[in-house]
Amino acid sequence: MPQPELLETFPNPYSRRDYEIVLTCPEFTALCPLGGVESDASELALLKGGAPDFGTITVTYVPDQRCVELKSLKLYLWSYRNDAIFYERAVNRILDDLVKATKPRRMTVVGDFNVRGGIKSVITARHGRTPKTAP
Amino acid sequence: MPQPELLETFPNPYSRRDYEIVLTCPEFTALCPLGGVESDASELALLKGGAPDFGTITVTYVPDQRCVELKSLKLYLWSYRNDAIFYERAVNRILDDLVKATKPRRMTVVGDFNVRGGIKSVITARHGRTPKTAP
Amino acid sequence: MPQPELLETFPNPYSRRDYEIVLTCPEFTALCPLGGVESDASELALLKGGAPDFGTITVTYVPDQRCVELKSLKLYLWSYRNDAIFYERAVNRILDDLVKATKPRRMTVVGDFNVRGGIKSVITARHGRTPKTAP
Amino acid sequence: MPQPELLETFPNPYSRRDYEIVLTCPEFTALCPLGGVESDASELALLKGGAPDFGTITVTYVPDQRCVELKSLKLYLWSYRNDAIFYERAVNRILDDLVKATKPRRMTVVGDFNVRGGIKSVITARHGRTPKTAP
Amino acid sequence: MPQPELLETFPNPYSRRDYEIVLTCPEFTALCPLGGVESDASELALLKGGAPDFGTITVTYVPDQRCVELKSLKLYLWSYRNDAIFYERAVNRILDDLVKATKPRRMTVVGDFNVRGGIKSVITARHGRTPKTAP
Amino acid sequence: MPQPELLETFPNPYSRRDYEIVLTCPEFTALCPLGGVESDASELALLKGGAPDFGTITVTYVPDQRCVELKSLKLYLWSYRNDAIFYERAVNRILDDLVKATKPRRMTVVGDFNVRGGIKSVITARHGRTPKTAP
Amino acid sequence: MPQPELLETFPNPYSRRDYEIVLTCPEFTALCPLGGVESDASELALLKGGAPDFGTITVTYVPDQRCVELKSLKLYLWSYRNDAIFYERAVNRILDDLVKATKPRRMTVVGDFNVRGGIKSVITARHGRTPKTAP
Amino acid sequence: MPQPELLETFPNPYSRRDYEIVLTCPEFTALCPLGGVESDASELALLKGGAPDFGTITVTYVPDQRCVELKSLKLYLWSYRNDAIFYERAVNRILDDLVKATKPRRMTVVGDFNVRGGIKSVITARHGRTPKTAP
Amino acid sequence: MPQPELLETFPNPYSRRDYEIVLTCPEFTALCPLGGVESDASELALLKGGAPDFGTITVTYVPDQRCVELKSLKLYLWSYRNDAIFYERAVNRILDDLVKATKPRRMTVVGDFNVRGGIKSVITARHGRTPKTAP
Amino acid sequence: MPQPELLETFPNPYSRRDYEIVLTCPEFTALCPLGGVESDASELALLKGGAPDFGTITVTYVPDQRCVELKSLKLYLWSYRNDAIFYERAVNRILDDLVKATKPRRMTVVGDFNVRGGIKSVITARHGRTPKTAP
Repeated sequence: MPQPELLETFPNPYSRRDYEIVLTCPEFTALCPLGGVESDASELALLKGGAPDFGTITVTYVPDQRCVELKSLKLYLWSYRNDAIFYERAVNRILDDLVKATKPRRMTVVGDFNVRGGIKSVITARHGRTPKTAP
Repeated sequence: MPQPELLETFPNPYSRRDYEIVLTCPEFTALCPLGGVESDASELALLKGGAPDFGTITVTYVPDQRCVELKSLKLYLWSYRNDAIFYERAVNRILDDLVKATKPRRMTVVGDFNVRGGIKSVITARHGRTPKTAP
Repeated sequence: MPQPELLETFPNPYSRRDYEIVLTCPEFTALCPLGGVESDASELALLKGGAPDFGTITVTYVPDQRCVELKSLKLYLWSYRNDAIFYERAVNRILDDLVKATKPRRMTVVGDFNVRGGIKSVITARHGRTPKTAP
Repeated sequence: MPQPELLETFPNPYSRRDYEIVLTCPEFTALCPLGGVESDASELALLKGGAPDFGTITVTYVPDQRCVELKSLKLYLWSYRNDAIFYERAVNRILDDLVKATKPRRMTVVGDFNVRGGIKSVITARHGRTPKTAP
Repeated sequence: MPQPELLETFPNPYSRRDYEIVLTCPEFTALCPLGGVESDASELALLKGGAPDFGTITVTYVPDQRCVELKSLKLYLWSYRNDAIFYERAVNRILDDLVKATKPRRMTVVGDFNVRGGIKSVITARHGRTPKTAP
Repeated sequence: MPQPELLETFPNPYSRRDYEIVLTCPEFTALCPLGGVESDASELALLKGGAPDFGTITVTYVPDQRCVELKSLKLYLWSYRNDAIFYERAVNRILDDLVKATKPRRMTVVGDFNVRGGIKSVITARHGRTPKTAP
Repeated sequence: MPQPELLETFPNPYSRRDYEIVLTCPEFTALCPLGGVESDASELALLKGGAPDFGTITVTYVPDQRCVELKSLKLYLWSYRNDAIFYERAVNRILDDLVKATKPRRMTVVGDFNVRGGIKSVITARHGRTPKTAP
Repeated sequence: MPQPELLETFPNPYSRRDYEIVLTCPEFTALCPLGGVESDASELALLKGGAPDFGTITVTYVPDQRCVELKSLKLYLWSYRNDAIFYERAVNRILDDLVKATKPRRMTVVGDFNVRGGIKSVITARHGRTPKTAP
Repeated sequence: MPQPELLETFPNPYSRRDYEIVLTCPEFTALCPLGGVESDASELALLKGGAPDFGTITVTYVPDQRCVELKSLKLYLWSYRNDAIFYERAVNRILDDLVKATKPRRMTVVGDFNVRGGIKSVITARHGRTPKTAP
Repeated sequence: MPQPELLETFPNPYSRRDYEIVLTCPEFTALCPLGGVESDASELALLKGGAPDFGTITVTYVPDQRCVELKSLKLYLWSYRNDAIFYERAVNRILDDLVKATKPRRMTVVGDFNVRGGIKSVITARHGRTPKTAP
């Protein structure tokens, strides 16, 4: 089950300047919902045929007062490993959890998922607007 | 014969936010119209020399109330397998069928077809406008 | 249903010298056997969920008295389009049919199939031995 | 000698919607003008040392009432094979001939030519403007 | 816990000829042993910091009487998902389990694992010898 | 310890024209802060487990009166080799030091760091605005 | 019509040592035989629909007393431009002509031709054997 | 010493239309200034240790009345071969010389130089503005 | 100074079978000897101009009774960070230290170093012979 | 004029073991012989139209008692910069000069030259034999 409480932050060392951080996490994995039903029943879902999904999560943000701590981000993403969740929900939830934890000036989350049944999916969600003088 | 009735949808789990979904389907195949005449005579066309066409269909959309279900999209695209159809019509029809089924905020369909007679074709059709604050 | 009678040949214009011909056919498609049962019921199989398979067939051979005519090879490979057949059988059958039609000094057929269920398959079958002084 | 009369068109099946067609023709060849003099003396030019030029022609257009027929485009491009012509003229002439034949909403022709004397040339010519809501 | 009982086989349709099958499974994942201790405590290990490992398993074999069924191979590899196991043991165990299930003429298993702590590992284990006239 | 006093400059030979210089330095290395504490204790940090970080620093700028001398830039970047510093601070500090030394019309510094713990980081900081007629 | 009389040679400057020369000519073009009939009727064939063929010719040889002069090789290959000839004959004829002109210790000619009708062809012919101590 | 008098031009055959020409010259070489002093002492500089520099020069322009003749551009770029010159000066000078010779509607010169002392440099200079309806 | 005492091993879990392990370590760095004199004066050497070297170390081995522990290998390679050492000595020393620590059936070490002064170096050293039936 | 006296060597630090060194020098340049006449008239040749040639020289060797010093190798290769020399002679001469200077157990020199007149050349010359147990 996604565990946003794992996310930790540290003070942004250059908050007086807009600068951009891109974090790429190529080893995201979760389970495909069984019969379209999402759950966090992990091992059970896997054995019943809920196929594992694999993808890359990319987080792009301009920090305000807090930056996300990398190791905690890794642990947070691991917490999806045994959950059955739709791609659309996963990407939007990761964005919501990170926005809540870091209150960034703006943030985008992209989930780039491997082919399933011959179709590849990429989901992009954004919080905040691109200002005219973005880095 | 293309079967739009195969398309199924599910409720968009994050309809309050504009977010983008890109679906890439690299194994699209149909038949080339025999003597420029489109038909759905399948096996017949193939034997008479209507060459198979191969390509990749990419659907990019911002969902409104409904998302397209992936397995149903795959079956819908399979339904072109034995039809003789022009590239231009195929791409525009796929767009029309998907717009009708999902009523998206906006949608683009790209058909990227393999070389035929030494010429490669890419067709792009769009429904709706790109807003200024698109994701 | 595979139609080896479509294969045509022409006299090898340089039969006094061993030389090698490699033919790559990147647009092979057939159907996956439904429930493990092979058939040639085409449209039926497709509608019932026998997924299309896609791959590249590569034929490497040293001709003896006859070469395979390219257009006829293309038509022969098209004749698999609506059959449900295992990868292993398809590759070995293509080799058998081409050996029978051209009686080559040696021949190898490789079937390199797209990912299905997260697993990619490559099948290689050979007729005849590699002599010590092969080209 | 370029033969625009080879170009054929067919009615645009979706003229109510702006959509884009990209045609890539990677096997264009003509001759380099001998001593800077263009001609259509073909075989003669070749023997006297007018080097063959090779390149890729890419045509991007939004059709209005007519689309260019692919096989006729191929034959039209073949008609340059034995002419001596400057890159700049070839690209602008192809654009003029295609605009005349199809009267598109807009069209771009790019000629991407192989290295000659250590220098690679890419020529881009355009007919019409990019509207604000182009596909 | 690895479950070799998930592996299923089917009769080799061309057992009279040596031919080679290469199966590539790019989505293998297991857990890293915690403090060097292997276990199958899954969720527990993950939470305690046993990092997930990701890699590609490639199986190359010449079948004798039986071929491995692809879907069962996929399920068998999924059964490593929540186990803590060394790379070396995983590759050798997969080889042992597949040799036991299919009794191939020869077989090689390669595990190509993602970078961990700045070091990438590739493990290769083989059963049987390469005959002089291998395909 | 970063040594901005190593940076040397030379007069811009074309200051009457805005032109852009991109400098890519692919061999940047520093140390990861031990337990999140930055220091310049070099050898000590390394032995205690503060892992080396590796990355590429790219400096893009439009010079005003002074250009940065390349050898001095190289020596300046080497001065980070045995310091423990956060990515975010390193990129912003390099920008500050270079802006102070060269007073450019505008400048961007990108730090593209190798994967650490399965996550790759790219940090981008900018000084000045992109004018409408930038090169 | 192929003109072997265009081939010129110069004395091998290091004939006391076996060394290898690889010449790659990526801009070979000829015409496809019309209805399977080879000819040298150039312009005529092209207009009647004998499609141009494109490919790369690679010549690998160990010279004995003579090396082939590069510009003459280029002109010789240009002499195929307007002939209708089978791939198999072209490659073997180029080998024969070059062997006759240079009497090499050994030589291989590879013709790697672009896709035609969805099939790519590579033809390899060799003169002489690979000695045990080849460079 | 750079010799702009080598540059020749010919009349633009399509001056009534804005079209773009991109010329890529991948074999530019000059010498690095010895101790920061530029000179044209060629052979001398080379022997004293002024290292050769290598790079690619790309010229992009919209011609007005004159186009640059390709062979003369090649000879002009060769004239830098034995001069010691800073990257910044070389790129700006090439732009000045070409603008003077061809009086283009607009022109950009990019010098993309190989790594020196672990740092790669790319210099971009532009003459004229990008109009709103550029090709 | 290289510290082979950092190397740790663990018992080979499959010593009854010859299998191969390839370890790739892409972040090796050391210092270039100052004036051709090797030393371990680290910080001093760096400031005096002994340039950092960067490269990838690849270790391929067939274990006998012991495998090298990955984290200890990483720490051992880090111990070269501030030493001035020739490429040739580094590669041979790494091989000697690893052979002493693990007594493998055979082992190869490759050092693939980045360009220095326009020249790239790759050094390969081997312990033991390739048996006829190597994996 | 090639200056073998520039080559310097240093004692092989591991002469008791056969190990291989590969040196890649991607920035070799010389002049093409004018009218087939080789010379060392440099600047003169260049102005008269003897085109510059560019390529990559790769030296692979197993040292015996001496290794080639890298900076001296670079200077030696620079000494070809303004000479007019055939590819074949350049490669064989580099091999001869390096064999004389280092007396290696074996050595191979490859010259991989850029396309000239549409033809790419690669020349390989070898000194000594590959022993059965080469690294």
